[in-house]
Amino acid sequence: MAALEKVLAKIDANLEPALGRLFKLIEIKSISTDPAYAGDCAAAAQWLVDELKGLGFEASLRPTPGHPMIVAQGKAPRPDVPHVLFYGHYDVQPPDPLDLWETPPFEPRLAEVETGKQIVGRGVADDKGQLMTFVEACRAFKETGDLPCNITILIEGEEETGSPSLPAFLASHKDELKADLVLVCDTGMWDRTTPAITTMLRGLVLEEVVIHGADRDLHSGIFGGAAINPIRVLGRIISDLHDEHGHITLPGFYDGVSELPEEVAAQWRELHAHEGDFLKSVGLSVPAGEEGRSVLEMVWSRPTCDVNGVIGGYTGKGSKTVLPAQASAKFSFRLVGAQDPAKIAESFRAFVHKRLPADCRAEFLSHGASRALQLPFSSEALSRASRALLAEWGKAPVFAGCGGSIPIIGVFKNDLGMDSLMIGFGLEDDRVHSPNEKYELSSFHKGARSWARVLNALAL
Amino acid sequence: MAALEKVLAKIDANLEPALGRLFKLIEIKSISTDPAYAGDCAAAAQWLVDELKGLGFEASLRPTPGHPMIVAQGKAPRPDVPHVLFYGHYDVQPPDPLDLWETPPFEPRLAEVETGKQIVGRGVADDKGQLMTFVEACRAFKETGDLPCNITILIEGEEETGSPSLPAFLASHKDELKADLVLVCDTGMWDRTTPAITTMLRGLVLEEVVIHGADRDLHSGIFGGAAINPIRVLGRIISDLHDEHGHITLPGFYDGVSELPEEVAAQWRELHAHEGDFLKSVGLSVPAGEEGRSVLEMVWSRPTCDVNGVIGGYTGKGSKTVLPAQASAKFSFRLVGAQDPAKIAESFRAFVHKRLPADCRAEFLSHGASRALQLPFSSEALSRASRALLAEWGKAPVFAGCGGSIPIIGVFKNDLGMDSLMIGFGLEDDRVHSPNEKYELSSFHKGARSWARVLNALAL
Repeated sequence: MAALEKVLAKIDANLEPALGRLFKLIEIKSISTDPAYAGDCAAAAQWLVDELKGLGFEASLRPTPGHPMIVAQGKAPRPDVPHVLFYGHYDVQPPDPLDLWETPPFEPRLAEVETGKQIVGRGVADDKGQLMTFVEACRAFKETGDLPCNITILIEGEEETGSPSLPAFLASHKDELKADLVLVCDTGMWDRTTPAITTMLRGLVLEEVVIHGADRDLHSGIFGGAAINPIRVLGRIISDLHDEHGHITLPGFYDGVSELPEEVAAQWRELHAHEGDFLKSVGLSVPAGEEGRSVLEMVWSRPTCDVNGVIGGYTGKGSKTVLPAQASAKFSFRLVGAQDPAKIAESFRAFVHKRLPADCRAEFLSHGASRALQLPFSSEALSRASRALLAEWGKAPVFAGCGGSIPIIGVFKNDLGMDSLMIGFGLEDDRVHSPNEKYELSSFHKGARSWARVLNALAL
Repeated sequence: MAALEKVLAKIDANLEPALGRLFKLIEIKSISTDPAYAGDCAAAAQWLVDELKGLGFEASLRPTPGHPMIVAQGKAPRPDVPHVLFYGHYDVQPPDPLDLWETPPFEPRLAEVETGKQIVGRGVADDKGQLMTFVEACRAFKETGDLPCNITILIEGEEETGSPSLPAFLASHKDELKADLVLVCDTGMWDRTTPAITTMLRGLVLEEVVIHGADRDLHSGIFGGAAINPIRVLGRIISDLHDEHGHITLPGFYDGVSELPEEVAAQWRELHAHEGDFLKSVGLSVPAGEEGRSVLEMVWSRPTCDVNGVIGGYTGKGSKTVLPAQASAKFSFRLVGAQDPAKIAESFRAFVHKRLPADCRAEFLSHGASRALQLPFSSEALSRASRALLAEWGKAPVFAGCGGSIPIIGVFKNDLGMDSLMIGFGLEDDRVHSPNEKYELSSFHKGARSWARVLNALAL
């Protein structure tokens, strides 16, 4: 039996004890946002350190200003194998509202449903079950032989609160954590039977603008008609940002946006059938983005401009005949490809200035900017991982995009120069952050097998 | 000495005791909005009843669900003289913030400033000093002979809280209150030396619209680009309501809007020099209304469309990448001439519907609608009052508009079929509703003389 076959067989044989280990981890109430659970977070971290030590990793718990990190090093005996950094998190969201859980959130169980077996419990999909797929793959390698790659495991306990300690920790442990590639298991599959590799994350520019008019709120009876209304100025800015075809009109906005490789475009066209369900799930039916683009392109590979909030004047019940002194809006631009956040912020501000009447001034607040991230489609690691997943699932993985940003992936790229291979086994109906969170038993089992195949493929 | 000359001389001779009476009325803390002052409101009403009885009026205090009204009837001995209804209010705004008053608000005093003498105290300009100009004119007629017209005086105590009891009171006392013309002393002069008659009041249509998109707030990373954003829909509606020349684009909006008579237009052109100051006083410099219109037209004789409030999405500090399920705005349309409020509300709703993407729906709330009011420029009463004011001030009165609505004038017109002649002697710097409210001694003195001349002219 070839080495990989032995590893996969070991994973199969280990399924029951693996589940027991996962249950133990879920039972620890590692809710990072609530200081009352700081002891539980430390306990979860210590449990993982002990687990990894048990597998022969050099593992230790690292204090931070918040909850501790775990860093574990596992060496492969073969020379010249790649070095990967696996990232996950042991912290979970609070389980509220408790009364909507069918069983207690920290008492994990196996539920039998029509489509198969599900593991139910807070944090099972986000991210305890996912991270344990990788740990179980490592276990199977160790129990049948050696690790195929050099593996560093980094697990943090503050992902659900925005990873406040992580950037500084990475900066001060660059040498220890530097690897050829990051592996992340915190994303999803395309559907129940089709794996996915997330290869692109949109960037984000967050700009708030306050339009100031008169130096005080005015009575619309006395001044209405003669005094400029900042809400009207803001309305025009919002309206002008898109043309009638859904294109964004900011000068230079599309610089750096490129088309998908034909192979990926073809794959996405095949996935097109799912699009209706996506919008239907939130009560919509008509894609609102650029004409001629598919929904997948709109949310994965095309840039956007949105208004996330607007306020001005009187917003209580009934009416008040006021002309407000100011009105403000929060804009967000999702970026793709090589779009330059600084240039887009600058273009936006110029766009606003161009639409300011003589008597108005604009005040800008930046709430952050980040570039899009893209694992090159030509990457050798991507090809190998892709073939590994095809072997496990019998279907080529979808090269997915992710419409939102995952800040940590940006830190890995920008501060440590590492690309990330995002492979996860979550499903859309996993109820992440919600009551009765679940993770498919097949995700857990075949997820571990998938990592075994991916690690093996990367080392070949 | 002719009768009018005697009346005017009596007003001059009475100035000191008249001031003493006004001070007494100001000393009564008739703050209508605060239940703690209900007794003071009743005391002010009783004081006025006693005053008017002392002048030979049949005066009585009328209870209402709120503060009492005063109704007083004074008969002229001559047959076939006009019957006028004078309207005023004895209630005042709260004096807060108290620490900004130079002297206690309810201890009236005469202050000597560069431009002359001023009476200082809460309510002196709004409306106690103004209503007493009319009472003092009546006194002078009675003390030198007879009233020149049949006079009904109606004074309410709830104007500062929106006159909640007045419409029902008018409806149930139609016969008693019906007159040929209403006289109102609650408006202002053009400037310190130029009287004004307010001949037009803009109407008002208040419409709120809520644009609904998805059935819940969405994450802009996941749905951004594909899901419709109600703020963007609202922005387009706001933007489209005006063209680049400041005209309102609602179909049929200008139906019923007519141009000023050339005589009035010429008068307004002469007043044009003041326009800069009007906007400058609130930090603005460029009129924002229809191109080619003067500021006076914009605020007095032209209709408007304004947004009084807008809200949608996240409006707290920082950013939140949300696509809101809804966004709403409050619109107000100021109407002039014969514009039909119902047609305008209907046109607005159609305008919104026309701009709704397939996935959006609009919910409308009406917050009221009223027609513009116009005392015809050809009115005989207007000509007579105008000549009377010219005689007193040496300058023809400005035929002013009022950009806001005065609901009670609408009730007089719509429910009792009476036009109102609005003549007041307030000045822009009277600090109405603010600390250190004042009324020029000359407004009080020449105001009384003006009413004597107007009543005399109406009776000729």
